[in-house]
Amino acid sequence: MTQANPTSPQLAVEPGFFRGRRIADLQQAMASGSLTAEDLVRHAGAAIERLNPQLNAFVHVDIAAALAVARERDAERASGKVRGPLHGIPIAIKDNVDTADMPTTMGAAHFLGHRPPADARCVALLREAGAIVVGKTLTHEFAYGPTGDRSVQGAARNPWRTSQMTGGSSAGSAAAVASGMVPVALGTDTGGSVRVPSALCGLVGFKPTHGRVSDAGVFPLAPTLEDPGVLAQCVEDAQVFMQALSGGAIAPAIAGVDAPRMGWVANVPFAIDDAAVTACVRAAAERFARGAVPAAPEVTQYARALQSALGAIQRAEAYEVHAERVESEPGKFDPEVLERLRASRPVQGWEYVRALKERTRLQAEFARLFQQVDVLALPAVAITAPALQQRTVAGPGSAGVRETLLGLTNPWNVLGLPAISLPAGWVNGMPVGLQLVAAAGADETLLALAASRWQAPPAD
Amino acid sequence: MTQANPTSPQLAVEPGFFRGRRIADLQQAMASGSLTAEDLVRHAGAAIERLNPQLNAFVHVDIAAALAVARERDAERASGKVRGPLHGIPIAIKDNVDTADMPTTMGAAHFLGHRPPADARCVALLREAGAIVVGKTLTHEFAYGPTGDRSVQGAARNPWRTSQMTGGSSAGSAAAVASGMVPVALGTDTGGSVRVPSALCGLVGFKPTHGRVSDAGVFPLAPTLEDPGVLAQCVEDAQVFMQALSGGAIAPAIAGVDAPRMGWVANVPFAIDDAAVTACVRAAAERFARGAVPAAPEVTQYARALQSALGAIQRAEAYEVHAERVESEPGKFDPEVLERLRASRPVQGWEYVRALKERTRLQAEFARLFQQVDVLALPAVAITAPALQQRTVAGPGSAGVRETLLGLTNPWNVLGLPAISLPAGWVNGMPVGLQLVAAAGADETLLALAASRWQAPPAD
Repeated sequence: MTQANPTSPQLAVEPGFFRGRRIADLQQAMASGSLTAEDLVRHAGAAIERLNPQLNAFVHVDIAAALAVARERDAERASGKVRGPLHGIPIAIKDNVDTADMPTTMGAAHFLGHRPPADARCVALLREAGAIVVGKTLTHEFAYGPTGDRSVQGAARNPWRTSQMTGGSSAGSAAAVASGMVPVALGTDTGGSVRVPSALCGLVGFKPTHGRVSDAGVFPLAPTLEDPGVLAQCVEDAQVFMQALSGGAIAPAIAGVDAPRMGWVANVPFAIDDAAVTACVRAAAERFARGAVPAAPEVTQYARALQSALGAIQRAEAYEVHAERVESEPGKFDPEVLERLRASRPVQGWEYVRALKERTRLQAEFARLFQQVDVLALPAVAITAPALQQRTVAGPGSAGVRETLLGLTNPWNVLGLPAISLPAGWVNGMPVGLQLVAAAGADETLLALAASRWQAPPAD
Repeated sequence: MTQANPTSPQLAVEPGFFRGRRIADLQQAMASGSLTAEDLVRHAGAAIERLNPQLNAFVHVDIAAALAVARERDAERASGKVRGPLHGIPIAIKDNVDTADMPTTMGAAHFLGHRPPADARCVALLREAGAIVVGKTLTHEFAYGPTGDRSVQGAARNPWRTSQMTGGSSAGSAAAVASGMVPVALGTDTGGSVRVPSALCGLVGFKPTHGRVSDAGVFPLAPTLEDPGVLAQCVEDAQVFMQALSGGAIAPAIAGVDAPRMGWVANVPFAIDDAAVTACVRAAAERFARGAVPAAPEVTQYARALQSALGAIQRAEAYEVHAERVESEPGKFDPEVLERLRASRPVQGWEYVRALKERTRLQAEFARLFQQVDVLALPAVAITAPALQQRTVAGPGSAGVRETLLGLTNPWNVLGLPAISLPAGWVNGMPVGLQLVAAAGADETLLALAASRWQAPPAD
């Protein structure tokens, strides 16, 4: 745990109850009777009440309803029924994921007050596993942005420095977990929307292999690229959460690989290169590898093809979702999101078809590459959290903030590969993330490796 | 067999050896020793030599090579090895399907002399089943046209009246089988390219459920809509051919359904309505049903949605295939094909994505509909064969020839359903086809039904 290192930089806010408490610790406390699920929900409620005005992580909270569920879970436990490791654990759900008992707004004026008829499949699975939903967390409007600072509910703020963005689009989930309002939260990741805010807020963020977790009831950004994922404080918590989300499709964690073959992905052409971030992440990769990490073969040569395919796929699919809204209710969009959507319209059909073909070709190339390495390592994000509303990264060849935030995460969405961001350390007091990427379907191996080998980063 | 009815209208050409001879008859003759595979190939060669100048069905023929294979098949038979019902049977392959030993031109100047490195999967399967490829048949250029009269090798001609088109794009395969040059031929069907020429030339034409037959080595028009299929003289021959093509995926024909629930599809808004054709086909449907055929529920209400989805899918995918060629070698295209390709470019990415979603929705609607009926019946084509190069159909609200030829076949490509055209009779001495459509995956049932219930049409 980050907290374990007493010289770590401190959050800019007074942490909530769950900061530094692992789900296993909470389960042990409930098992011993020193805490109840009701206690946990009250702690979540108190932390949200205190911290949310500073961080704007939650857009809807219902502690009364959560307390009622907590009492049911406590009664079950008293009668000897424990559903599993999430039994009685408070969680937060990104607000582009349907909840039958709470509004689901997508961060958009078009959906203010919208009440879905049923839980999304992944919410239903989490509830069946015993988790207690305390509220919905801010999403970048329609999840179409990695900055987390544009939605009808405003911007989420980074608990490490509240002038900075959390990253997005799972912005509120990152702020909620990093500040200790809840121990763990659901996000969605289309180009990095789980891993980017995890990296910028010092969390573990995991995106599964494409299609392994149901997206039924998740409001789509670009379904070919998108997967539900988890933001957590430690790998073990992410494992527990993914096991519940998989509905049995993802097996329990396997034993770690003894000596994973790791490959370092040199900074690719489309991301700005912050030497301090790269050095910090590379050091984390070497701690993880327990030795040197040689350069991965071939990867950077595919960078442009991956970006090009991603652009066509994401834009065509995103515009399809919103075509009628852009025509009939343009004024309700955040101007930046509207501009992005309008810029997405011109992708041509044949270019989209070509991009899908390219994706298939690139997936085959990477399947071959993953016969030579077990894990690719690279920064999750090439910079630390920019300021809210910042849109340009200074430096040699200045770049857009969006492109820079996503440039190292979105290649793995095109390929549909499982990827995790792990806290790698701090640069100028702000967290940075080490991203590990594995072969399609190697979700359990990647999580098990991370659980067995990741070590808390040394202080800044 | 059509020939069985002595009062049937006659072909405009002197039929080749295979006209009216079923594959089973040919097998019996080979089994009894009265004919050899070598004889059959010689008969094919003689018929091609005599008829091809009139019909332009074949664009490449290699009788010498076919004779060598025939002698191998005869030797096998002499040693007791018979591969199956296609053993020693001469066949023709549409020229957009790869053959390792013959050029494959797609009917296009861009590919004149092109030699693929290997057989298409379906060609390999046919050869493994014992069939002998005698040549390649004319395809409408790049299979992008249902008229069969535009290719670098010119137009195929209809054996029933050589001033008329065969329909396409499997134009040469239809002319070759209808005239008796070969007993059976391979085609491909993206919007009706097997069923349209089968109907216009008085043949049985079958398109399987999408994806059941490999398209590896088939030059693509629009892969989401496209499937290899067969043009034959009778249903039993089509069954034998499809069994070989399926590589074991399609089971041998099952027993016919005793009393199929049939539904008549009233003429849909997008096809011109020729009353004589409709009456002829409806009578054939009633002979097939052995009674009245009630109107099918719901189908016509989906006509517009089906056309719209088909348009976006076909155009985006077709342009993707040819984008670079249209840019760099436009002058090599037939002007009409070039014009169609250029008109295909503007489909937008989001429209393509929407069309795929619509397809999924419509497939679900039709899956429900096929719980109420076993077979939909309608004309394969609403008119008889137009003249070569004719592009407008006269009549109340004149229509384009292409749209009219495809309007009743292409809905089933969008849905990916198995469909067959059966000779229904003649109108003004030209054949018309009864089209039957079944639920996805019901290929064997549809073929078995057709084999057990189809009767030779009465003469004009």
